[in-house]
Amino acid sequence: MSLRVSIVGASGYVGGELLRLLLDHPHVSIIQATSARNAGRYLYQVHPNLRGRTNLQFVHPDTLQPCDVLFLALPHGEAAQAIERYASLAERIIDCSADFRLRDPAVYQQWYGSAHPAPAWLERFVYGLPEVNRAALTGARYASGVGCNATATNLALLPLVEANLIDRSRPIIADVKVGSSEGGATVNEASHHPERSGAVRSFAPVGHRHLAEVEQVTGLRNVHLSITAIELVRGALATVHAFASRELSEKELWQAYRTFAREQPFIRIVKERQGIYRYPEPKILAGTNYADIGFAYEPATGRIVSICAIDNLMKGAAGSAVQCMNLMCGFAETTALTFAGLHP
Amino acid sequence: MSLRVSIVGASGYVGGELLRLLLDHPHVSIIQATSARNAGRYLYQVHPNLRGRTNLQFVHPDTLQPCDVLFLALPHGEAAQAIERYASLAERIIDCSADFRLRDPAVYQQWYGSAHPAPAWLERFVYGLPEVNRAALTGARYASGVGCNATATNLALLPLVEANLIDRSRPIIADVKVGSSEGGATVNEASHHPERSGAVRSFAPVGHRHLAEVEQVTGLRNVHLSITAIELVRGALATVHAFASRELSEKELWQAYRTFAREQPFIRIVKERQGIYRYPEPKILAGTNYADIGFAYEPATGRIVSICAIDNLMKGAAGSAVQCMNLMCGFAETTALTFAGLHP
Amino acid sequence: MSLRVSIVGASGYVGGELLRLLLDHPHVSIIQATSARNAGRYLYQVHPNLRGRTNLQFVHPDTLQPCDVLFLALPHGEAAQAIERYASLAERIIDCSADFRLRDPAVYQQWYGSAHPAPAWLERFVYGLPEVNRAALTGARYASGVGCNATATNLALLPLVEANLIDRSRPIIADVKVGSSEGGATVNEASHHPERSGAVRSFAPVGHRHLAEVEQVTGLRNVHLSITAIELVRGALATVHAFASRELSEKELWQAYRTFAREQPFIRIVKERQGIYRYPEPKILAGTNYADIGFAYEPATGRIVSICAIDNLMKGAAGSAVQCMNLMCGFAETTALTFAGLHP
Amino acid sequence: MSLRVSIVGASGYVGGELLRLLLDHPHVSIIQATSARNAGRYLYQVHPNLRGRTNLQFVHPDTLQPCDVLFLALPHGEAAQAIERYASLAERIIDCSADFRLRDPAVYQQWYGSAHPAPAWLERFVYGLPEVNRAALTGARYASGVGCNATATNLALLPLVEANLIDRSRPIIADVKVGSSEGGATVNEASHHPERSGAVRSFAPVGHRHLAEVEQVTGLRNVHLSITAIELVRGALATVHAFASRELSEKELWQAYRTFAREQPFIRIVKERQGIYRYPEPKILAGTNYADIGFAYEPATGRIVSICAIDNLMKGAAGSAVQCMNLMCGFAETTALTFAGLHP
Repeated sequence: MSLRVSIVGASGYVGGELLRLLLDHPHVSIIQATSARNAGRYLYQVHPNLRGRTNLQFVHPDTLQPCDVLFLALPHGEAAQAIERYASLAERIIDCSADFRLRDPAVYQQWYGSAHPAPAWLERFVYGLPEVNRAALTGARYASGVGCNATATNLALLPLVEANLIDRSRPIIADVKVGSSEGGATVNEASHHPERSGAVRSFAPVGHRHLAEVEQVTGLRNVHLSITAIELVRGALATVHAFASRELSEKELWQAYRTFAREQPFIRIVKERQGIYRYPEPKILAGTNYADIGFAYEPATGRIVSICAIDNLMKGAAGSAVQCMNLMCGFAETTALTFAGLHP
Repeated sequence: MSLRVSIVGASGYVGGELLRLLLDHPHVSIIQATSARNAGRYLYQVHPNLRGRTNLQFVHPDTLQPCDVLFLALPHGEAAQAIERYASLAERIIDCSADFRLRDPAVYQQWYGSAHPAPAWLERFVYGLPEVNRAALTGARYASGVGCNATATNLALLPLVEANLIDRSRPIIADVKVGSSEGGATVNEASHHPERSGAVRSFAPVGHRHLAEVEQVTGLRNVHLSITAIELVRGALATVHAFASRELSEKELWQAYRTFAREQPFIRIVKERQGIYRYPEPKILAGTNYADIGFAYEPATGRIVSICAIDNLMKGAAGSAVQCMNLMCGFAETTALTFAGLHP
Repeated sequence: MSLRVSIVGASGYVGGELLRLLLDHPHVSIIQATSARNAGRYLYQVHPNLRGRTNLQFVHPDTLQPCDVLFLALPHGEAAQAIERYASLAERIIDCSADFRLRDPAVYQQWYGSAHPAPAWLERFVYGLPEVNRAALTGARYASGVGCNATATNLALLPLVEANLIDRSRPIIADVKVGSSEGGATVNEASHHPERSGAVRSFAPVGHRHLAEVEQVTGLRNVHLSITAIELVRGALATVHAFASRELSEKELWQAYRTFAREQPFIRIVKERQGIYRYPEPKILAGTNYADIGFAYEPATGRIVSICAIDNLMKGAAGSAVQCMNLMCGFAETTALTFAGLHP
Repeated sequence: MSLRVSIVGASGYVGGELLRLLLDHPHVSIIQATSARNAGRYLYQVHPNLRGRTNLQFVHPDTLQPCDVLFLALPHGEAAQAIERYASLAERIIDCSADFRLRDPAVYQQWYGSAHPAPAWLERFVYGLPEVNRAALTGARYASGVGCNATATNLALLPLVEANLIDRSRPIIADVKVGSSEGGATVNEASHHPERSGAVRSFAPVGHRHLAEVEQVTGLRNVHLSITAIELVRGALATVHAFASRELSEKELWQAYRTFAREQPFIRIVKERQGIYRYPEPKILAGTNYADIGFAYEPATGRIVSICAIDNLMKGAAGSAVQCMNLMCGFAETTALTFAGLHP
């Protein structure tokens, strides 16, 4: 018997990806997809890739009914405001926004500029990155989403952190390149095609909020994050520069990455000596849930460049959310997430 | 029990798509993928999207073994030269090249410049477009591939042809816009990124060979084809200008398109009055087997603009080939071809 | 002594190009650049390429002062509403909108849906395409702008029209591919980068208003226009399919194009037998005032494919406007329009 | 009277830019443009933007004649091999390759893997970055070119170095994003459009040779360089992460940048609080000789993110070379380098 699933905020890009994935999920049925603005329109009128896949129409969020699993794909701040209502409607909730990602209300206030509206809920939500929280997510009732830039940065850092190979006294620089879908479906001057096309925009050289998630997940306190928006729709590539805590051989690094990737169905190590695709490349990950990670090492200086590529809407948002649902509900972890990606 | 499938010429882009599709096909197993140049390398070293999906290696074409279904994804001319050998190895063959698409050896000679090397085989091959040859393909032993530009043009024209709505005495202009993957995986000066990026290249204003396939499939004799290469990797959009044979209502046109699309699992009609995606858009078809068709009509002049969008590597090549295999082998027609495509 | 020039509507893309060109023009000085929305801001805050080139600030349109030459770069309809006021302020006016392009008020009403607000002014404006109206523009007081799609189509057709080589009884299809800057600087859902990037959008398969300009300029009555928006910011390529009125040699066609191009400083014929750039390519015209034209001919069917590439903001708008000003004011026609364009 | 100028290696991208610039230079005449491969072809057959600008043809390098100024735009290693011959032909030489950039033969050997073929010439060449070597370049006979990634990095660092604001004990990370033209005009598998388009390729995470130029120019010993190739043809953006040597106010940083930019005709400081173009953007620099620099500062951590954008073929190669020539020959420094760039 299928679980009954609803998606709140289904007209955005993360909502659209949730719809795409869940429509093909063998163990769930989408019963409602809400959008205040698009209520009454067919899903495929907003997400044209769903034409012929479903005749579901958007409904107004006020009409939300009880369901088994509720996905929230709302602008930051909205889920927390109404979490009691949502919790009364659904046994399980996966919130893709930033509202329940941080454990510490003080950290939330520091980065988001106001007190958390529902601080008691913070500890009920498991941070939705299965690669670090698989056990906690299994059977859990509430999971947060993940930040896309945070996820690329975290997955680049974790192999090194877990193997304790980073010199924590030296700065760690995460320079993330991202596509335009990260800005969401809402039009603004900065997203106007003649301006955005071909741009290499220093979107957040300092001060990006995802740093809070990186510090929480990695335990590091010396990470510096910069985000550059490039010509790309989907995709994020984190180039993370760190320094080795001691002299290393490349073999030790390989071992650290392999250890991290072991039993992780969506982590692949990419490091080739030849060919075009020697390091992780977000281009070939569009639509997939993979996080490809690789590294380069410079023995003379001890610099490790750890690289992670993801599709920001998938592993960086909707894909991880569905992966969480699979764990929460006891489904095989990779269910509905097996698209291989395209080349070229 | 799985059918044993092999792919000859598996390092090209069509070969790569065949691998991607067939690896996920529940009723077949890939036993060999040949590439003279890449023999011994892992598939994922050439097709990086297959990393973690298979540990198969390319083998040299000389080592080709008997199998149940053989896909040929070779440069034009090579399949026909060796068809006897291939036929001795496999019960069923699907040839993605142009070698067995044309029924008439004289037409072949006219367009390809030399006598067909195996003319007796031409009539054994069914033209591999299920939308027109479903019955003939069901259970067939040999199917040809389809030309991508031909397919976009044919699927734009067929609804009108079948409903007999075109004035055959007036010229029909098919202006096709295509992505760079149509040129294949072989490097050349024209495909050098600094030159090709952002280009709007009048690749074949006249004289494109796919016209022969259009004439064969539609029975029209007044079609004029032009190909323009644009900034795009995957995708083809045919904008076909034809004139109505009589005064038409838009309703009649809708009926013609709906009649054509009926029971066609991969044909969708796209014609919206509002929104961004009013007509077929190749962008959202990357990786899918859909052919989206739509139209605009100008009553004052009788001009019908019929529009078809496809992914040239899928519906225009590998996707149609797998669809043919499904029909030839008695599998459900859509097996392994259900990827919905991405938005945005 | 410099002429005093002002630009109304200077914050749009055509306005920005006028600023760029006129700042480098040796015989004029920009005295005012108006923008209701940006009054008080520096020009370079809207047009970042002008940083360090001028310290001029936008002024409110209500403060417009008398000047020698006035450029109007307003949304369609606004110039005509206030033409009396503008004419009272400036000796010479060049209006880049569609308001004064058509000679016949009835044709204006047919295409723009309402009666022309100042029909008496239509005959005072010279259509601003120097390639057909050089004599009339020389010393003229009022010039209209040109439509970008119309210009690409007209310049593709004129060599054939002037040599009387087109069969006027057969349809002429103009399939124009355009970049996103054609939609102007105003944000809308269709221009949102994640949606617009990589699109091949059938923007106006039928019914585009520029057809009126094509009919007026070429005298043809059988032209059919379709516009497809592709991945490109600047540029338009018209692929025009026409049929020869009689048997032609390629030499005759060459002669027709050469005759047309003679003494036209911005027309180049592009038709090469080898190399990457065999036909006109808008990519290399960004920022230039060139219109490159070329052709392909199919003797068996009589089809002529005439191809014209322009930068829609330059030869299709601001460049032609400055070229008109040069003629109107007695400057050398190419003044301030000599940028060669970039490769790659 | 014009100086007689020749360009060796004129069919590459840097050679093409030299041709474009020098054809419009009022004080020089191009007398020869060599290309072994293209001898006899018109320049515009390789550089289509030069059509109608010159009827010059490529000549074979063996036919090189004496001239006043010789530009060498050859693959690395070739200029040094034949420098005696070139010096016998020309009073002044500007070499765009890496051959004469480094002062110390040992450093050359370290980075380029073999002994320098003409070490005595190293000290005769002035490093061709006018922003640091203006006095030495004025009247000089020999100038080297600059590395494009090095130039973006150097110009990001120099304001901080000259004001002594960097903590030299902490690592400095330069993460450079570059376009495909940086790879030159020679085709290779990595530049094949279907592979390169949309890629975010970790081209040189460690070990890029331009670091040698950065160390030489800045005197810093703690710089770490990584190069990522993104979807872009022209342009380089250096995002340089450094740490302040002491507590700083933003005002002090502004002062450092302004001091550096003073009297530098091609340096602009870009740092806006609003609008789309808040930081340097390579997109609007295509074809210009500007280096736009800006910064962000994070007081809590002391991190300074210094950002420099250039056109790699211009300020990063041909533009700087012509700027050098202007200084060497006593022309106004900005001659032939005044193109403003395009928006959008």
